[in-house]
Amino acid sequence: KQLWTKKDFISSLPKRTPFSHKGSFGKGILAAGSSNMPGACALAAKAALTSGIGLLSLYVPESIKPIIASHVAEAMYVSGDIDWNMYDGIAIGPGIGRTASAEALLHDVLAQAEKPLLIDADGLYHLKHYLPLLKNKPSPVILTPHPGEMARLTGLSVKEVENDRFSIASQFAKEYQVYLILKGKYTIVTAPDGMQAVNPTGNPALAKGGTGDVLSGMILAFMLQHHQLFPAICNAVYLHGAVSDQLVSKGHSQMDVTASDIINGIPMVLHDFESDTVC
Amino acid sequence: KQLWTKKDFISSLPKRTPFSHKGSFGKGILAAGSSNMPGACALAAKAALTSGIGLLSLYVPESIKPIIASHVAEAMYVSGDIDWNMYDGIAIGPGIGRTASAEALLHDVLAQAEKPLLIDADGLYHLKHYLPLLKNKPSPVILTPHPGEMARLTGLSVKEVENDRFSIASQFAKEYQVYLILKGKYTIVTAPDGMQAVNPTGNPALAKGGTGDVLSGMILAFMLQHHQLFPAICNAVYLHGAVSDQLVSKGHSQMDVTASDIINGIPMVLHDFESDTVC
Amino acid sequence: KQLWTKKDFISSLPKRTPFSHKGSFGKGILAAGSSNMPGACALAAKAALTSGIGLLSLYVPESIKPIIASHVAEAMYVSGDIDWNMYDGIAIGPGIGRTASAEALLHDVLAQAEKPLLIDADGLYHLKHYLPLLKNKPSPVILTPHPGEMARLTGLSVKEVENDRFSIASQFAKEYQVYLILKGKYTIVTAPDGMQAVNPTGNPALAKGGTGDVLSGMILAFMLQHHQLFPAICNAVYLHGAVSDQLVSKGHSQMDVTASDIINGIPMVLHDFESDTVC
Amino acid sequence: KQLWTKKDFISSLPKRTPFSHKGSFGKGILAAGSSNMPGACALAAKAALTSGIGLLSLYVPESIKPIIASHVAEAMYVSGDIDWNMYDGIAIGPGIGRTASAEALLHDVLAQAEKPLLIDADGLYHLKHYLPLLKNKPSPVILTPHPGEMARLTGLSVKEVENDRFSIASQFAKEYQVYLILKGKYTIVTAPDGMQAVNPTGNPALAKGGTGDVLSGMILAFMLQHHQLFPAICNAVYLHGAVSDQLVSKGHSQMDVTASDIINGIPMVLHDFESDTVC
Repeated sequence: KQLWTKKDFISSLPKRTPFSHKGSFGKGILAAGSSNMPGACALAAKAALTSGIGLLSLYVPESIKPIIASHVAEAMYVSGDIDWNMYDGIAIGPGIGRTASAEALLHDVLAQAEKPLLIDADGLYHLKHYLPLLKNKPSPVILTPHPGEMARLTGLSVKEVENDRFSIASQFAKEYQVYLILKGKYTIVTAPDGMQAVNPTGNPALAKGGTGDVLSGMILAFMLQHHQLFPAICNAVYLHGAVSDQLVSKGHSQMDVTASDIINGIPMVLHDFESDTVC
Repeated sequence: KQLWTKKDFISSLPKRTPFSHKGSFGKGILAAGSSNMPGACALAAKAALTSGIGLLSLYVPESIKPIIASHVAEAMYVSGDIDWNMYDGIAIGPGIGRTASAEALLHDVLAQAEKPLLIDADGLYHLKHYLPLLKNKPSPVILTPHPGEMARLTGLSVKEVENDRFSIASQFAKEYQVYLILKGKYTIVTAPDGMQAVNPTGNPALAKGGTGDVLSGMILAFMLQHHQLFPAICNAVYLHGAVSDQLVSKGHSQMDVTASDIINGIPMVLHDFESDTVC
Repeated sequence: KQLWTKKDFISSLPKRTPFSHKGSFGKGILAAGSSNMPGACALAAKAALTSGIGLLSLYVPESIKPIIASHVAEAMYVSGDIDWNMYDGIAIGPGIGRTASAEALLHDVLAQAEKPLLIDADGLYHLKHYLPLLKNKPSPVILTPHPGEMARLTGLSVKEVENDRFSIASQFAKEYQVYLILKGKYTIVTAPDGMQAVNPTGNPALAKGGTGDVLSGMILAFMLQHHQLFPAICNAVYLHGAVSDQLVSKGHSQMDVTASDIINGIPMVLHDFESDTVC
Repeated sequence: KQLWTKKDFISSLPKRTPFSHKGSFGKGILAAGSSNMPGACALAAKAALTSGIGLLSLYVPESIKPIIASHVAEAMYVSGDIDWNMYDGIAIGPGIGRTASAEALLHDVLAQAEKPLLIDADGLYHLKHYLPLLKNKPSPVILTPHPGEMARLTGLSVKEVENDRFSIASQFAKEYQVYLILKGKYTIVTAPDGMQAVNPTGNPALAKGGTGDVLSGMILAFMLQHHQLFPAICNAVYLHGAVSDQLVSKGHSQMDVTASDIINGIPMVLHDFESDTVC
């Protein structure tokens, strides 16, 4: 178990080389959003772009494209039967809903994916039925449950999860060979080999609808830009919390911060961290 | 009668505990907006989220979902026959219109609700026909009339209302057992037992379309975060006015402030108040 | 002929009294926008709200409501056969297009209106055919032509208009009994009695599509808040130019300023003017 | 070969004369966007307006007009069979897609255009089949390939292009009589006579989807405001990179900058350059 510190963040955050181009920072795809939760996709997409992804394609229901495109001008759209492995990384889940078609989509992606795959939110809801598929996957899978979702995935109660966060996370990550982000006051990141890091950033400003969608977008972006997944995930979680901490100290309160504010606060924090590196 | 002061605000505003999550701050539902007044819902929703609500679901006509979602990415949508008591609190009224279907919706919610229920704007218009339903409600109801709406509810003239604000408000609140917010230069909050507080904040910058919708959203959010309704309501009214006062002193005039500006000014004021608490 | 100065602006800008409400600052209606020019309505509407109008209703084609509502949450919508005199003031023209239906709308409004009526942009295009209707109108009409539109209205060439701005404006205003705003480097405001004021503010940053729509919205708002039309119009023109001047001196250049920037700059300028008044 | 410096930028950037109007700064048309890439058009349009274009018309699929109009209120829309030469300049390509109808549009514009014509992105993809049409065009054509697109246009590999950027650009520009912007760490602008300038600004913050669309909009605006095309293009490229450099030094990092941020940063940089001129 390690505490993931600002020093870890700064030393493992990749630097951009002058001769890079948009392909250098990853082509990601995000399957998110539904008629009743269109904003979840908009938040995750905007977060991914603000976190440095090179190119982002969105797989969303046709009907909500205008909503998402009004929030994010930089993304592209794909639909129908696509080859999920054309992309460098995949994220699925935010706001996809608990319908049969969302479940079919999760199953389809899970079965096909040979690239790093992040499953979040309603994706975790459907994953419950497909846990065995995780065991034989050669490509990495990242799960981001909050305690309620973790309880559902494990069959435990929320209380049981909360009382033994480290070992339950460790056991699950090793059994299913996944990267597991168990959210909470101190979010725990666990690697498939059982390595764990605890995140020190964040505050109750994050206890609001949409902040999880933002984290998904950030992880997608970071997993395409880091050489290794473990620091990529730890850094996304760290940054997500660090932004909320900065906002509360600069012009916001824990009450008012929205998920959109978290996205808009990313530049300030990354800028400050970069300045720290130089000094 | 009491003057609700900054000290009252600061001492009664709930503090967030570190081990909270989005469920800790309430699951609210807002029925608002219509084809001709889509913005009313967007304003109330955004205000609720910026005022700390944990999760917000919107009950709106299908056709205006894209409009609202372009303003607020953090809300979810529900429709059809729903169980209004699945939520911790309900707000209805802003921009729902004066149609028969809006009236039916108000009636339906009023009849079913067993959770704190805020009725505003066009909701108050329709309420006129259902006043008797208020008397036997075990769960609290909050009404937010301006003098014109109060006149309609009571059958008095606007002048009569204005000439005797305190006692008319008190009488009505006690008779119908409601929390009553009688708007005006000095907004009066009255509890069902007749307790009254006068709000000292606010200025003519608030005399513009949409500011009432913003207040509705703020009350919804606060009623889910405070332990008691009376200070929750007083605090929302206080904050709403305090933001308009701050804006006018910082870069705005009474002429230019819009309802959206009020929402955007909430963080600054809450941040300043929080700093005051610490000092 | 008078130069309209900052002193004139400050002394004639109405002050808000504490016991005002949204009705105190006017209920205006704006007929603007079309399928190919939806933004013109959004700009005029946002400008009117930022310039202090109490309540704003928009008369627009159904198909573009979502576009406008994504820009402006504070406006309401009306359609069909309406009573234009239900409002305290009317503006028509920005982006309505040069179609037969737009012409019919202009004619309809012109024939019915008994409240102050502003005609701008494509409204002026159609007005060419209805000039005689202006002569017998008991309620005031305001026209806002740029030199090209003035040429069309008078049958002169643009050059002829430009060579004799003061007397052509004066003659036209007196003949048709209108308030005339002849745009240009020094915009001239002429009253029906021939009184003229020259505006000293503004710069080439305003030479961009959409800035005229913003001015229309500002005039509509000001004509509902001032006791007299002449200073209302002069103040709107003055403020419009003053904002562009301030923007160029604070973080912008003449090249980059957009019509939206003008709207967003209104608060800063009004705030500064208000501070000046106090000192 | 020349290095395009800040001094070149400042001395060749046109100054606005007081007696200008929106027609003075060009009427441009932009054909961009498609169902799967609506944002590309929004970004290019907003960039053109922020870069000083006088009037901007957009030629886009009907279905995405609401998306674009929610981002840009200042543009107008045209459709169907239009006369491309009614405009002072034309840009085609960002986000038009690789469909047959997009190809037909490119061909149509290319065949008709007698005004300066910028071809970018998917426009370059389709241009591959129509290269011979370039040779006999009396009006100027501007191409903006990144190395991958240059490779496709020339039939070379990306590596071959990268190993010999200057001479390949020069040869192509002279053969097809075009202005060629070969993107990269040091973007090279080549005139039809072989004159070349190297751009010193920019950093890896630009390596993200959408930044090319922004550049297209900037070039369209600048080519309508400069007397000569070569400095117009060099200035657009210079400004595009200079904004990214400023952002990274002021509150952003190379990771977080989005294409929208580039647009929003234009005013700051132009303002600073204008201040430099004065000093």
